[in-house]
Amino acid sequence: MKKYISLDVGGSNINYALYDNNGEKLYNSKKKTKAVNGQEYVLDKIFDIIDELIEKDKKNIEGICISIPGIIEDNSKIVFCPNIPFYNINLKKIIEKKFKIPTLIENDVNAAMWGEWRNTNKQYNNGIGLFVGTGVGGSIIINDELYNGKGGAGEIGHMNVVKDGIMCGCGLKGCLESYVSKSGMMKIIELESKKEEKSLLYKYLKEDGSMIKSSSILKAYLKDDKLAKNLVYRSSEYLGSAIGTLVNIFNPDIFILGGGVIESIGEYMFEDILYHARESAMNSFRDDIKIVSTKLGDDAGIKGGYYLIKEYLGDNNA
Amino acid sequence: MKKYISLDVGGSNINYALYDNNGEKLYNSKKKTKAVNGQEYVLDKIFDIIDELIEKDKKNIEGICISIPGIIEDNSKIVFCPNIPFYNINLKKIIEKKFKIPTLIENDVNAAMWGEWRNTNKQYNNGIGLFVGTGVGGSIIINDELYNGKGGAGEIGHMNVVKDGIMCGCGLKGCLESYVSKSGMMKIIELESKKEEKSLLYKYLKEDGSMIKSSSILKAYLKDDKLAKNLVYRSSEYLGSAIGTLVNIFNPDIFILGGGVIESIGEYMFEDILYHARESAMNSFRDDIKIVSTKLGDDAGIKGGYYLIKEYLGDNNA
Repeated sequence: MKKYISLDVGGSNINYALYDNNGEKLYNSKKKTKAVNGQEYVLDKIFDIIDELIEKDKKNIEGICISIPGIIEDNSKIVFCPNIPFYNINLKKIIEKKFKIPTLIENDVNAAMWGEWRNTNKQYNNGIGLFVGTGVGGSIIINDELYNGKGGAGEIGHMNVVKDGIMCGCGLKGCLESYVSKSGMMKIIELESKKEEKSLLYKYLKEDGSMIKSSSILKAYLKDDKLAKNLVYRSSEYLGSAIGTLVNIFNPDIFILGGGVIESIGEYMFEDILYHARESAMNSFRDDIKIVSTKLGDDAGIKGGYYLIKEYLGDNNA
Repeated sequence: MKKYISLDVGGSNINYALYDNNGEKLYNSKKKTKAVNGQEYVLDKIFDIIDELIEKDKKNIEGICISIPGIIEDNSKIVFCPNIPFYNINLKKIIEKKFKIPTLIENDVNAAMWGEWRNTNKQYNNGIGLFVGTGVGGSIIINDELYNGKGGAGEIGHMNVVKDGIMCGCGLKGCLESYVSKSGMMKIIELESKKEEKSLLYKYLKEDGSMIKSSSILKAYLKDDKLAKNLVYRSSEYLGSAIGTLVNIFNPDIFILGGGVIESIGEYMFEDILYHARESAMNSFRDDIKIVSTKLGDDAGIKGGYYLIKEYLGDNNA
C-alpha cells in the first residue's frame, strides 16, 4: 500500500509520522528541533528522520510533506522563517535531490488548517483558521483550496484591531496578535505585576519560564484569579470582534479556532467570542456565524501534510 | 452578431446599454430610477428599458444582466436592497419569464469591479475593489472569480477600523465607511460648522443639498480650504491603513480604487493612501503593494454586466 511521510517542524519540536493511503498513522514520534544549532544541524535532523521513516517501508513511500513555521514560496522555498535558521533555501529541491521522492513544503499553520479542514468536514467551501498560542496564526481556505494570495497571505494575527495600539513583535501597532495571544497577555501580566494587586499568574510565570503556559492561565482562571479572568475575557473580546470584521469581509462558511490558548481555555471563551463576533458583524450576516474548535491537537500539522502530499500526487482514492 | 443587454440600477439613475459580442457599446442611455414610487414602478421602468433595447435588434439578444445595489442570492434573488424598494424578489425569474432571455442579477459593486477587472488586466488572479462615494463598496476577486462567501461577502466598508468608534449607518461602530466616505465627511462638516472657523464646504454644502458633492470637496481642496484638506487627508489615512490590513490578510495582486471621491480627488490622495498602506502592512509585503484607480467611470457597472452575462453563457470568444 502507498505510504506518505509527514514532518511538522516547529521551533521546539519536530513531530513526524508515516501514514498509509487510508490516513492511518503507522508510526509517529517527536524529536527536539534544537534550532539554535543552526541550519545544517536542523537539515541533518530532517534527513535522519526521513531515513528513519523510509527504513519502515523501503518500497512504498510515495511522497513527503514538510511543514515549516515561515513564509513558503511555491511549496518549495523558505523565504522567511523567524524561529528556525532557514534563510532562502529551496527545501523541496534539497529533499527531492537527496531522497528521490516527490516533496512538498507548506507553511505550518496552513498544514494544520488543512488537516482540520479535511478531517472535520467535507461540505464547506470557505473557511478561516485562527490558531492562538504564543502568537496568532491564520489560514484561509477559499473554494476548498488553501489561499496564499501573492504568497504568505492569511496573516490574520496582524490585522489592525486598535488604531495606534500596542506595539507588536512584527513591528506594527495594534495587531490582533498583541491583544489575544500569550505574548499579548504577557505584556499585561508584566505591567500588572508592578501594581499592588496579587495574581496567581505571577507565581505560575516564574515556574513556566519566559512564556506563560496556556495550562497556567487555565489553572488561574479556574481559581477565579481576577487578572487571569480579565486576560481571557479580553482575548475573547478582541478575537470575537476580529471574527466579526472577517465575517463582513469574507462571510465564510466556518471559522476553525485552535492553538494552545483555545485548546486549554477555549471552552470558557467561546460564548464571549461568539457574542463579540455577532456585535461586530453586519445585521444580514450576524445570525449565521459558525465557529468551531480544532479536533486534532498536535496531529493537525502532520495529518494536514499527509492530505496535502497525497492530493498533490493525485492519489485521491483511499 | 450576438448582443447583450446590461442595466445598472442605482438609487438615482438606471444606466443601460446594448453591447455587441466584441464589447462595443451600440447604444447607451440613462433614466431616473424614482425609487420612491415603489417596486412596481421600478419594475415597469426596467421592463420598458429592456423593451426599448430589444427593439434595436429583435433576433440577436443573447442575455441580460441587471446590477442592483443590494445583497443578491444565487445571481437571482434580491435579498436586501436599502435604497430601492425591492424586498425578497427573484428578479431573474421575473425577467426570464417575461422576456424569455437568460438573465443574471448581480450586486452593483461586483458588476463595476468585474468591468474594471476585465477591462484593465488579464494577468492577475486576486484583487480587491474599494469604491468610495456616499458609502464604501467593496468587491473581492479570488482566482479570477468574484468571491461572495456564503452570500454578500466583500463588505469591506464595514470592517472595523476604530474600536468603539463613530456610529455607522449600518448600526456598527468604527466602520471604515464612517471615516473615508462622503457620509463620514458630512458628519465632520456638520460638527465643525458649529465652531468659529470658516470653511468653503459650508457654503458648497448648502448649494449641493443634503449630501456634499465630490466635486465640491475637490473645489475647496484646491482652494486650500483647511477643513477640506483635513477631510481628504483623513480619508486617505484610514483608507491606506485598511488596505495595509487587507494586504496582511489577502496579499492580493492589486487594489482597484474607484467611486466618486476617488474619481474626483484621487490624484491628491494616492500618495497618502500608499504611504499608510505600507505603514500598516507587514515587512515582507510592504514593498509590493499595487494600487490603481478605476478607468471606466460610470460605464464600469454596465460593462461588467456585459462581461458577466457573456461569460455566464459561455460566449468567451469575441
